[in-house]
Amino acid sequence: MIATQKDRHAALRERLIDAAERTIAANGLASLRARDLAREADCAVGTIYNVFEHLDELILWVGLRTLVMLDAALGAVRSASPSGSSEAAVDDLVRLALAYLEFAATHTIRWRALFDHRMSEARALPAWFVEQQQMLFTHVERPLLTLLPALEGDARRTLARTLFSAVHGIVALGLEEKLESLPLPALRNQLAGTVRAITAGRVELRSIGSAGG
Amino acid sequence: MIATQKDRHAALRERLIDAAERTIAANGLASLRARDLAREADCAVGTIYNVFEHLDELILWVGLRTLVMLDAALGAVRSASPSGSSEAAVDDLVRLALAYLEFAATHTIRWRALFDHRMSEARALPAWFVEQQQMLFTHVERPLLTLLPALEGDARRTLARTLFSAVHGIVALGLEEKLESLPLPALRNQLAGTVRAITAGRVELRSIGSAGG
Repeated sequence: MIATQKDRHAALRERLIDAAERTIAANGLASLRARDLAREADCAVGTIYNVFEHLDELILWVGLRTLVMLDAALGAVRSASPSGSSEAAVDDLVRLALAYLEFAATHTIRWRALFDHRMSEARALPAWFVEQQQMLFTHVERPLLTLLPALEGDARRTLARTLFSAVHGIVALGLEEKLESLPLPALRNQLAGTVRAITAGRVELRSIGSAGG
Repeated sequence: MIATQKDRHAALRERLIDAAERTIAANGLASLRARDLAREADCAVGTIYNVFEHLDELILWVGLRTLVMLDAALGAVRSASPSGSSEAAVDDLVRLALAYLEFAATHTIRWRALFDHRMSEARALPAWFVEQQQMLFTHVERPLLTLLPALEGDARRTLARTLFSAVHGIVALGLEEKLESLPLPALRNQLAGTVRAITAGRVELRSIGSAGG
């Protein structure tokens, strides 16, 4: 059987994303070179730009894989408390925060690459990437629905993004070597305490959603 | 008068930091090239490495200037409430969070460079940089002393870092273009709501410090 040109194109595309993913996961964004990728994927350097518009696009496809992995890690979080109660909802939020830390601590280099990457020349992000990013917040929205049932959709989405961002900040600066990275047990404690403190201040939380949407 | 060699060395050093600062503040870290810096500072490329151990060190000196600017911005925050009360302390924490947002929104490129920069080859950070970084948390420690007077020094420092990190996360993801950056009024609302919610949950906050230090 002879592979069609379309098949070959698709296979090359996968090889290039695989090669970029290996490089980014092992050494980070700064180590990515078109020449190395071409050698690894067994094509000419110019061919990369037949398959992807620019290196930014290739980096985003690797970022998409990281987002999908992270989505799976957060999706696997299940509360131990009986569901439907406020306690279960707070538990879920704490577990989500801890799962996020776990993911970042395990896949540190590729997780950092996701946030360090800046689009060159003010290029717009493709919709397939934006949609996968927004998925992250939906994990936080679910417990919020139990915790603050009166909150409307937009307000809940805003609040979910705020909580996700606060947790992200604690994890990002907590694992930051320049800031003397913290031991994981201390970080877990900070995350659980912060999420419990935030959710204890429910009156103020409602205000985030209502005016910020 | 003839400048001594030591004077010339110091003047060149300043010119190089100035040149790197202009580049980083205007276009970010990725645009920094030794060749361009040498041209701007009117020296040979190799001379840069007589003045600085490596480009990382030069980048850190620019980072130090950013940290000093940020320190001044946070140091200028004064509460409107009579000091000494819990309300004044919470107010101060809210104002600090808003001042941090203001700084990041005004100096976005150089502020991002501070967090995007990674040391090459696992080089250790110099003490002068680490100390200036730790200064940031002291602004948060002061209101915490009023709010939770029973908390010991280490616990207060841990809690200050946690709160700073949560605020940093909301600002960082809030201004992130890849995540569709939020309008400043919405972000201000999220920050104020989060800080007020967190400080309302004081029992949980104590637990962050006590076990995490």
